[in-house]
Amino acid sequence: MRKEEGLEKRAQRVAKPVLEVLAGRVLDPPPLWLMRQAGRYLPEYREVRARVSGFLELCYTPELAVEVTLQPLRRFPLDAAILFSDILVVPHALGMEVRFLEGEGPKLEPLRGPADLARLDADRLHERLRPVYGTVATLARELPPRVTLIGFSGAPWTLACYMLEGGGSKDWLAARRAALAEPAFFERLIGLLTDSVVAYLSAQIAHGAEVVQLFDSWAGVLPESETRRWVIEPARRIAEALAARHPGVPLIAFPRGIGPLYPAFVEAVRPAGVGLDTTVPCGWARDALPGDTALQGNLDPVTLLVGGDPLAEEVARIRDAFRARPHIFNLGHGILPQTPVAHVEALISHLHSRGR
Amino acid sequence: MRKEEGLEKRAQRVAKPVLEVLAGRVLDPPPLWLMRQAGRYLPEYREVRARVSGFLELCYTPELAVEVTLQPLRRFPLDAAILFSDILVVPHALGMEVRFLEGEGPKLEPLRGPADLARLDADRLHERLRPVYGTVATLARELPPRVTLIGFSGAPWTLACYMLEGGGSKDWLAARRAALAEPAFFERLIGLLTDSVVAYLSAQIAHGAEVVQLFDSWAGVLPESETRRWVIEPARRIAEALAARHPGVPLIAFPRGIGPLYPAFVEAVRPAGVGLDTTVPCGWARDALPGDTALQGNLDPVTLLVGGDPLAEEVARIRDAFRARPHIFNLGHGILPQTPVAHVEALISHLHSRGR
Repeated sequence: MRKEEGLEKRAQRVAKPVLEVLAGRVLDPPPLWLMRQAGRYLPEYREVRARVSGFLELCYTPELAVEVTLQPLRRFPLDAAILFSDILVVPHALGMEVRFLEGEGPKLEPLRGPADLARLDADRLHERLRPVYGTVATLARELPPRVTLIGFSGAPWTLACYMLEGGGSKDWLAARRAALAEPAFFERLIGLLTDSVVAYLSAQIAHGAEVVQLFDSWAGVLPESETRRWVIEPARRIAEALAARHPGVPLIAFPRGIGPLYPAFVEAVRPAGVGLDTTVPCGWARDALPGDTALQGNLDPVTLLVGGDPLAEEVARIRDAFRARPHIFNLGHGILPQTPVAHVEALISHLHSRGR
Repeated sequence: MRKEEGLEKRAQRVAKPVLEVLAGRVLDPPPLWLMRQAGRYLPEYREVRARVSGFLELCYTPELAVEVTLQPLRRFPLDAAILFSDILVVPHALGMEVRFLEGEGPKLEPLRGPADLARLDADRLHERLRPVYGTVATLARELPPRVTLIGFSGAPWTLACYMLEGGGSKDWLAARRAALAEPAFFERLIGLLTDSVVAYLSAQIAHGAEVVQLFDSWAGVLPESETRRWVIEPARRIAEALAARHPGVPLIAFPRGIGPLYPAFVEAVRPAGVGLDTTVPCGWARDALPGDTALQGNLDPVTLLVGGDPLAEEVARIRDAFRARPHIFNLGHGILPQTPVAHVEALISHLHSRGR
């Protein structure tokens, strides 16, 4: 009850559509932002990216991170800005080497077992992430009044996937194997990551993030028992800890790909909003998830890439399904680098022409 | 009604556990087979594989394909043999070049658009697939009486994924883009593949396959509207055509990864059995799917790889969930090459010690 009053008050004070929806209001048209809205599909982003040698340098240079965060807002009437950063700053801040190789994705020296936990050092987390907090603080001052500032972190399971695999993977076999074969080690790793994510998101909020989103990008590869243990339970602990420290600051959880377990996730975690991935049927989500949870999503990035009639039809379908619900329009996965800027404009035009 | 009587009769005549369950009976313990049970985790398979230069040569040489199909049955008391072949024999039989490169997966010269449909020639399908039919015919004669012979095919969507991408992919962007951007072309391709799959499975049945399984391995990447169009509708047409030509021969459909759309799939396709992938919560599937549909699955291959207590616990969990339902025990995805043979033996021991 107290939490909801806090949300309500905040939404009234700032009159920000994203916060209003996260407080349970239905807006027509729904507010809009796009996962990876600051990114390679924008020529001005590519120009900034070319100025730095490494991707992490971009994340850790506040003036550049602020600049790329603001770029999409100059082009489009988006309702939120999401901190420009990467989920792998947490493993990096714990002491792991993280490199981004052009066209290959991230590379880490993988953790091999319990002894490697000694390589991780949580004491210097905030010190190493200080530039990110600087970016958040600047954004909090510079954003237009109706734009909500969203901070974010990778979720423990997804971070563990990269830390054990040493990079991207189709099947995340190293993490899935460790979770079953070395549960004590894996439990310690997830515990360390859970605490680190709480500390990281908490600092983002302290520096001005108005909402935080928890990305569990690889939640969808596990059987039920492990989804409950490594995805749902850590998210529940993070939500609980953040609610205690920062009552009224909404959490959007994005357990990508968990399909039929979305209801169990929402029931346990009780986030203010839940991100629906591309594959989630809208009608099913509407009927299966509690009415006071804001639903965020879930346009297929490929539909945005293709544009034209398929885009118009799909936007209408998603709008119709969530018409009576608190809904934040978004993609169901990050925007694709090849997406024409004109298609984002078309999406906005479809949203606004129907709603007003 | 007629179809069910046919199934019933067949199950009584042959007394094969897999056919009994597909006819709606509950068996304790449930019958067992494993996806990719003939494969690289067996040393005797690797020995045969080393004798041929290409993977397709193995699929197209009946004496070798029969040998590797039978290998797991000599080791384990499995209730089904599945034809040793590959889903890409259909694109190959339609005239596409398909190569399997060691450690890299399959490579095809991808279809680029409507003009490339001229490269596909359905008239020679049966001629090119004749060796596969020879394998099926030999297996039908040689299998022990209680073992069910399962034929299979890739489903149209999954085949189209490989044909447009030219190989494996994380996101199947080429196929997803073509499906939206060139729907007339894509519809023709799916139509051609649907007809080819019907012809192929029908010939397998004519040569002695007692059950056929339809693998839609990449069904789980699409939004709802496209899942209905490219996954569910082709499967429905295939099921309908096979039921008309071969009444009483059960179909097991495996729309891997479609999550909350499993019920819509089963309602439209009405297969005798449905394969549940690793991520499907058993209790949810039990409650959401019709009681006369046999449920097949869904042990995580990683759990089989790890063995020990996690394997014992997970086998018990799956057994308990499906205790009152027609259930064929299987993995939720193909067995991993690194799986110790002893873990398959342990799985069988867990299944049999509880049930008898």
